[in-house]
Amino acid sequence: MKILLLQGANMVALGKRQPELYGTTTAAELDALLLKEAKTLGVDLDIRYTNVEGEAIDWIYEADNSGVDGLLFNPAGFVYAGYALRDCLKAVSLPRIEVHMTNLESRGMQSVTATASDGMIMGLGIDSYVHGLRALTYLIKTRRA
Amino acid sequence: MKILLLQGANMVALGKRQPELYGTTTAAELDALLLKEAKTLGVDLDIRYTNVEGEAIDWIYEADNSGVDGLLFNPAGFVYAGYALRDCLKAVSLPRIEVHMTNLESRGMQSVTATASDGMIMGLGIDSYVHGLRALTYLIKTRRA
Amino acid sequence: MKILLLQGANMVALGKRQPELYGTTTAAELDALLLKEAKTLGVDLDIRYTNVEGEAIDWIYEADNSGVDGLLFNPAGFVYAGYALRDCLKAVSLPRIEVHMTNLESRGMQSVTATASDGMIMGLGIDSYVHGLRALTYLIKTRRA
Amino acid sequence: MKILLLQGANMVALGKRQPELYGTTTAAELDALLLKEAKTLGVDLDIRYTNVEGEAIDWIYEADNSGVDGLLFNPAGFVYAGYALRDCLKAVSLPRIEVHMTNLESRGMQSVTATASDGMIMGLGIDSYVHGLRALTYLIKTRRA
Amino acid sequence: MKILLLQGANMVALGKRQPELYGTTTAAELDALLLKEAKTLGVDLDIRYTNVEGEAIDWIYEADNSGVDGLLFNPAGFVYAGYALRDCLKAVSLPRIEVHMTNLESRGMQSVTATASDGMIMGLGIDSYVHGLRALTYLIKTRRA
Amino acid sequence: MKILLLQGANMVALGKRQPELYGTTTAAELDALLLKEAKTLGVDLDIRYTNVEGEAIDWIYEADNSGVDGLLFNPAGFVYAGYALRDCLKAVSLPRIEVHMTNLESRGMQSVTATASDGMIMGLGIDSYVHGLRALTYLIKTRRA
Amino acid sequence: MKILLLQGANMVALGKRQPELYGTTTAAELDALLLKEAKTLGVDLDIRYTNVEGEAIDWIYEADNSGVDGLLFNPAGFVYAGYALRDCLKAVSLPRIEVHMTNLESRGMQSVTATASDGMIMGLGIDSYVHGLRALTYLIKTRRA
Amino acid sequence: MKILLLQGANMVALGKRQPELYGTTTAAELDALLLKEAKTLGVDLDIRYTNVEGEAIDWIYEADNSGVDGLLFNPAGFVYAGYALRDCLKAVSLPRIEVHMTNLESRGMQSVTATASDGMIMGLGIDSYVHGLRALTYLIKTRRA
Amino acid sequence: MKILLLQGANMVALGKRQPELYGTTTAAELDALLLKEAKTLGVDLDIRYTNVEGEAIDWIYEADNSGVDGLLFNPAGFVYAGYALRDCLKAVSLPRIEVHMTNLESRGMQSVTATASDGMIMGLGIDSYVHGLRALTYLIKTRRA
Amino acid sequence: MKILLLQGANMVALGKRQPELYGTTTAAELDALLLKEAKTLGVDLDIRYTNVEGEAIDWIYEADNSGVDGLLFNPAGFVYAGYALRDCLKAVSLPRIEVHMTNLESRGMQSVTATASDGMIMGLGIDSYVHGLRALTYLIKTRRA
Amino acid sequence: MKILLLQGANMVALGKRQPELYGTTTAAELDALLLKEAKTLGVDLDIRYTNVEGEAIDWIYEADNSGVDGLLFNPAGFVYAGYALRDCLKAVSLPRIEVHMTNLESRGMQSVTATASDGMIMGLGIDSYVHGLRALTYLIKTRRA
Amino acid sequence: MKILLLQGANMVALGKRQPELYGTTTAAELDALLLKEAKTLGVDLDIRYTNVEGEAIDWIYEADNSGVDGLLFNPAGFVYAGYALRDCLKAVSLPRIEVHMTNLESRGMQSVTATASDGMIMGLGIDSYVHGLRALTYLIKTRRA
Repeated sequence: MKILLLQGANMVALGKRQPELYGTTTAAELDALLLKEAKTLGVDLDIRYTNVEGEAIDWIYEADNSGVDGLLFNPAGFVYAGYALRDCLKAVSLPRIEVHMTNLESRGMQSVTATASDGMIMGLGIDSYVHGLRALTYLIKTRRA
Repeated sequence: MKILLLQGANMVALGKRQPELYGTTTAAELDALLLKEAKTLGVDLDIRYTNVEGEAIDWIYEADNSGVDGLLFNPAGFVYAGYALRDCLKAVSLPRIEVHMTNLESRGMQSVTATASDGMIMGLGIDSYVHGLRALTYLIKTRRA
Repeated sequence: MKILLLQGANMVALGKRQPELYGTTTAAELDALLLKEAKTLGVDLDIRYTNVEGEAIDWIYEADNSGVDGLLFNPAGFVYAGYALRDCLKAVSLPRIEVHMTNLESRGMQSVTATASDGMIMGLGIDSYVHGLRALTYLIKTRRA
Repeated sequence: MKILLLQGANMVALGKRQPELYGTTTAAELDALLLKEAKTLGVDLDIRYTNVEGEAIDWIYEADNSGVDGLLFNPAGFVYAGYALRDCLKAVSLPRIEVHMTNLESRGMQSVTATASDGMIMGLGIDSYVHGLRALTYLIKTRRA
Repeated sequence: MKILLLQGANMVALGKRQPELYGTTTAAELDALLLKEAKTLGVDLDIRYTNVEGEAIDWIYEADNSGVDGLLFNPAGFVYAGYALRDCLKAVSLPRIEVHMTNLESRGMQSVTATASDGMIMGLGIDSYVHGLRALTYLIKTRRA
Repeated sequence: MKILLLQGANMVALGKRQPELYGTTTAAELDALLLKEAKTLGVDLDIRYTNVEGEAIDWIYEADNSGVDGLLFNPAGFVYAGYALRDCLKAVSLPRIEVHMTNLESRGMQSVTATASDGMIMGLGIDSYVHGLRALTYLIKTRRA
Repeated sequence: MKILLLQGANMVALGKRQPELYGTTTAAELDALLLKEAKTLGVDLDIRYTNVEGEAIDWIYEADNSGVDGLLFNPAGFVYAGYALRDCLKAVSLPRIEVHMTNLESRGMQSVTATASDGMIMGLGIDSYVHGLRALTYLIKTRRA
Repeated sequence: MKILLLQGANMVALGKRQPELYGTTTAAELDALLLKEAKTLGVDLDIRYTNVEGEAIDWIYEADNSGVDGLLFNPAGFVYAGYALRDCLKAVSLPRIEVHMTNLESRGMQSVTATASDGMIMGLGIDSYVHGLRALTYLIKTRRA
Repeated sequence: MKILLLQGANMVALGKRQPELYGTTTAAELDALLLKEAKTLGVDLDIRYTNVEGEAIDWIYEADNSGVDGLLFNPAGFVYAGYALRDCLKAVSLPRIEVHMTNLESRGMQSVTATASDGMIMGLGIDSYVHGLRALTYLIKTRRA
Repeated sequence: MKILLLQGANMVALGKRQPELYGTTTAAELDALLLKEAKTLGVDLDIRYTNVEGEAIDWIYEADNSGVDGLLFNPAGFVYAGYALRDCLKAVSLPRIEVHMTNLESRGMQSVTATASDGMIMGLGIDSYVHGLRALTYLIKTRRA
Repeated sequence: MKILLLQGANMVALGKRQPELYGTTTAAELDALLLKEAKTLGVDLDIRYTNVEGEAIDWIYEADNSGVDGLLFNPAGFVYAGYALRDCLKAVSLPRIEVHMTNLESRGMQSVTATASDGMIMGLGIDSYVHGLRALTYLIKTRRA
Repeated sequence: MKILLLQGANMVALGKRQPELYGTTTAAELDALLLKEAKTLGVDLDIRYTNVEGEAIDWIYEADNSGVDGLLFNPAGFVYAGYALRDCLKAVSLPRIEVHMTNLESRGMQSVTATASDGMIMGLGIDSYVHGLRALTYLIKTRRA
């Protein structure tokens, strides 16, 4: 099972950026943690970071055309105006789960990509990714069945 | 570990109510499924349903005063105007996770209790409860550590 | 034919409450008048009053599960924030007509339950109930045919 | 007892226009049905259709000046911007009831003429007219007494 | 002179709930303080707490029908969506004063029951109750004179 | 000097319509008064009433093409949605003054035709017309000079 | 092939009205140009102007009932509040294209009839009509095939 | 007959300030013109300018207490936020007319004092004052009669 | 104990101004009543009226610099746009209570200075001042303790 | 004549993406069709796709600096937040026509780039491009003349 | 070169007022610092403080009439509702720069006088004044050249 | 001292783009002017232009990680929807000043990045950059001290 994890704008600065919101775990440490979890789940996990919305769109079409089974993504900085990203998600049939480290709603924010997500997990810090990966694996299996 | 699962207004009709949104699993079947999952996780799970917001508030204070370790809840019908419920959640220190069977944001809705939740999981049907129970157990352990 | 008439918050004070809006007929007098009309129509009419929204919801599910044929209701005080009541109405298949003694629209108000009503009759004082009962009887027969 | 039934913009196309909303009964069939009902009620019913808001206003003043006892009307296409029609209604003392075939509120619409109506009946298809005619007859008698 | 003090949703948690806003005086301590103040003023004070809006409405009608002279109330959690409570207040003739421990306006909030209150006292912590009790006693005497 | 006075929707009912707002002078009495004033000012005054916005537009183009020197008008019922009338006014070069018997602004209303008027006079009852006729005469002379 | 071209409020003044927006080609010149173009396309073109929205509605129903193949229309002055016209368009099955001489959107305007149009062409001056006629002819043929 | 003409904030700069809107007649020239017109009308006219809203309020109370018969005023710079001035106007019984040199409505502005004015005249440049003075004289006489 | 009572715009007209809202007690009578109450409380009360917001600001800084112990104030006409007054209040450390004779919230208004008040008392007519003076004395003593 | 056709975000997925809205013609098939049409019109057509808004901006400046005669563009995914693209269009003098396959207005959407377009053609599926290419060619010639 | 520095409402309290926002430098210390800087720049600097908006307006007209070369101003407390001040600024031709110690935009505020300013400098504490003085001197020289 | 100057979308067209707003100085000329000024200030200035928001974000992280001392930036086309850029700015500790050639506020616009800027300078044309560079140098030195 192949899964693409897409990290949106500013995620590259994880660990240094607003640690009172996002904690001190760095992007590299998160990657290691998730790759280990993926191994346990029998998942081939491809992790990518970008600050350019159009590049995220390119990668999603590429994944959709090359046999990837599911998409885990944190729109991050694209959460405010990523309408093109949202339309892209609507154009592909990949099972997808959107994750956020903080509880967006409790911060009075709304994700513009949410209308194109199957499910959302948020507010649990880096555990949002762990639970997201598990839930996505589960969802892919359910859809196949 | 003791966990209270609170089911808000109209959840009692699960399985019969708008099945195109909420599926055909009944409340009784969901309870059975979750009690089994709880057993696996070593959790003593107390499931309660109410259509009266004030009763939900009574139960949360009762839980907070009697050694319950965490709260899993679906505000359901209280999602629109449950401001008193939200203030109650802010008044207690219980770890809590809010779950929804549908992706609220993709339906253009917002949960008024979300600002008082630690985390949210939504859009995965009855699996939202399963992942919610696991994530809450995880969160309680993390907080204790 | 069995019909439930549900009177929402503050209807118990009918006749004493804001008589310039609602007249001086009391709740008891209205009940007598409607039971007489019901007899003429061959309807078994069950009239209930509550100030608790969740109790109204309980009663509707109970009616839906016990062979009641239709629901006549005045949301009254639930007209402003009765979203849970509205979702409950959407969850049941009972033919239902919403009545108001005053013309809500001409008072600049909107009923949040209206989106879950089959029909509405308003602005005719206590005659709104009389016409409502007749129209509901008619609607139940039409649906059966 | 003389009653004017005024049919607003697009009602002339009844039966052919959006049958999923308005059914397949034609304007001519509705007229026949109402004239028969009027006969039973001892009412002299004058039915008129117009697509021109100003013409509707002309007819209402004419009715008010020539001994008509009440007005039944479906603003139809004037429901959105018929402010002049609304002011006209406020200018006359005719008892009047507004009818709509669909439940406007459940479609997220509001009638601008509603603030000048004595009562409203909606959501019951062509039966909205039947109940409207009965309720108006009743209202005229009550006012006389 | 008989006065009913009604404490709305979440007031039962006073002293433990958000102490940075509401202080550490508990509900029991506040009751003792107010009963003592009532004694000094020659007032028979009945203090009640509820988390259920409909129960608050029941109690107000009961007070209005049984010779209570005035109502002191803190809508608390009903401040956001207590429209039915507001309509209830409009239905009774009891002199009433609304109190809040915090200055609602300075927190950017509005009380929906305020349109049905004679007077409001807010922002003085538990002293809001003390001054409210005195002002209500004063108001009842003035109205009698 | 030729002037067209255009009376919009519902002005025909002047004197009978909402006399607490518009007084008891009838349309006929107002015409007589204005024709007399016109004589004094040496003005050939053509007064027209219509409830049909499009007819008002026809008359304005006709006036513009046949040597009329100025337009006095009360949009009346067209005040809310008379956008087509407004565009018509923008299309012609006739000096024009808009009059209202009541002070629109103090009633919380705005005239949609106002953006196409040279001047406005309002709030002076039927004297709004008298001052309007004088001011328009003055304006025409000024433009000629 | 028979096509009705409907010109809405104020189009009769084309060429004289706000030439900085609409140019100096008159209505008569436009008609000549379009009739010539129609001849080339083998279209029997019926051009009508009206300032009365209800009359436009009458003509559309008439066209729909008498074998006209398509409708080209410029709502012009009905663009702001022509909701009845919009509902009329929804009621008929005629292929229709809406044209505007100016770019409505760049002027911050929205056409209320647009939700009932098959296509829109705007911003090209009188060429909007020429392209509209060609596109409509094309659309009719496509639908037939 | 004594009349106070109150010129609000920035009127002192008339003639130099935004001449494309307000022309080149200076404050002194306007005063001379109005004093001459007042003489003709038999009016004792007191003209005052102030940039301080509170001073305008002081003067109005002073006028109301010292036998002034009417108030002509241009709120000018107080048009946006002069709520205290508006409340002052509501507190006195002086006949009053508000004037503006430009057509406020056509500039998309609203005068906050308008809700406390008997009448308004605007859009006629300095003639707004001349017509205002005449209309006020007329109004005072009418009220006396 | 020295207290400054600040009366905002239009309070000078108390007793004559809108008596249906503010009663017939004059400013002088209110002053006498409050000075007597102050004597009883052992308070040196300085009462000032102004219609100029900036003057109110001057006085507050003066009081803050000269040993005044507390501020009682009715913003009155400054309630709508007194943002500078609000910032001034935030700049000083004086205990302060805001009073209103009417219940602002029940009139659909909000005080812009409220965000800078310690407490608010409103809706009790001139008794709002009496209770305000007592509560302020109480608050000053509490803060000292 | 050289024309640049710019295809915005997600157009690369044409034919596979939401076929119920955009049909099944692929991007490659559309290109072939348009290049053939361009040949007929004697146009040298350069077609480019991008998901990155900034890249679209780069290409437009490049076209403006290298002798391209006109711009045909479908902002597609940039339609929601492409403000930078809009400012870029305002910065160049290229004749430009914006096309959309669906009728944006009838879908309740607005294109942020529309205020910088000369003309718009929408709602005609892939024919929007064909008519757009013809209209642009026509516009370029007209501007040259 | 003569420059007027105008300090709006509450600036007189600088150094004592909300030091977490505005620092502890007092008004007197700021004046000394700026007069020294002015000397270096060869500027004759006149510094004035007022809490009364109308007085600020008086001073600006006085400056404009008496040879002052430029205006540096901090509207401070007038930032919210200083519309009359804004109109005054529009009435004079003085080069002017608006300064704020804090970054207004980052605090979610907007200055109503900004539409009448040539330039704005904000967010740099008392250095905003220093840079403002330099930029204004620069601007005056540039305009002269 | 090393400073990065970041020029946002469309700045590359400076001098040719909307010269009535931005003047005729080209990007190259501005660079020369600023490099000369930087030399005088002893600053090593790196100037970069991009139309791609994500590239701007990349550069800021790169600067933050490589010893750059401060950031001067004009978001330009990113001013409307550059939320990701704003979050990036919040993630780094670089002193930063935002500049605009025009006075954004006086054009009714707001910069979304402003909430992440230390200071803003706007409305002074290319001098905004010169003053911005000086102020940033000053700010860096102050912070170091």
